Amino acid sequence: MTTPTSGEEWIVEALGCDPTRLADPVALRALFAAMVSELSLHPVGEPLWHQFPSPLATADGDAGEVGGITGMLMLSESHLTIHTFPEHASACLNLFCCTPRAGWEWPVRLRELLGAQEVRVRHVLREYGNVQSPVSHP
Amino acid sequence: MTTPTSGEEWIVEALGCDPTRLADPVALRALFAAMVSELSLHPVGEPLWHQFPSPLATADGDAGEVGGITGMLMLSESHLTIHTFPEHASACLNLFCCTPRAGWEWPVRLRELLGAQEVRVRHVLREYGNVQSPVSHP
Repeated sequence: MTTPTSGEEWIVEALGCDPTRLADPVALRALFAAMVSELSLHPVGEPLWHQFPSPLATADGDAGEVGGITGMLMLSESHLTIHTFPEHASACLNLFCCTPRAGWEWPVRLRELLGAQEVRVRHVLREYGNVQSPVSHP
Repeated sequence: MTTPTSGEEWIVEALGCDPTRLADPVALRALFAAMVSELSLHPVGEPLWHQFPSPLATADGDAGEVGGITGMLMLSESHLTIHTFPEHASACLNLFCCTPRAGWEWPVRLRELLGAQEVRVRHVLREYGNVQSPVSHP
């Protein structure tokens, strides 16, 4: 019996963040850069960024208010994503690495980088090889 | 007490797939197109694709063998990603939608589109708003 080949994924919610930083592309670029450096990740190309209009803009008439940002970075290890919700002072991150590796100090670093007051981390295995395989494909 | 605002994520492993389709950019583009159409998703820009060299190429000297593909698509709903492992006949997908929605018939559609013999689906909530909030940020 062989051991399954697994990747690892961290599913992370950062709560009670500084809304200004969540809507600031520079702060989020700095977050990605810190993760790449501290976790020795290998980007494949440049990250994709997109800033959405504020969901509050219509309601309160402040059309100048900026909204959440999505960032996605392809890695040779797999991928890193973030979605920020300044109106909720929160962000959702995913880091998927197709080979096992040490984690990150999510609570400490997200407090420092985004002002997060609370960080919830779920760690899941992604088994993709040597899984008690069904029928081999013709 | 308010109800948390949650997104939903599907974490999916497709096993026993057709390795040819897992290494075929056309087949994977068709998979993303089917998901966008059938789930009424809203892409933000074009998907990012990258094909890796085969991890078997060095071992057996067949440098022409193509490897796995990573695809990432930013959505106004959040994101869709895939990583394929033709050498394991498997693929790992993530679909994150920041508002609740009906799921997809993952086992049926991944059998049809990738030849998957077995599909493992995990569904997780991503709570990012109205979470029993810690201290509000100064």
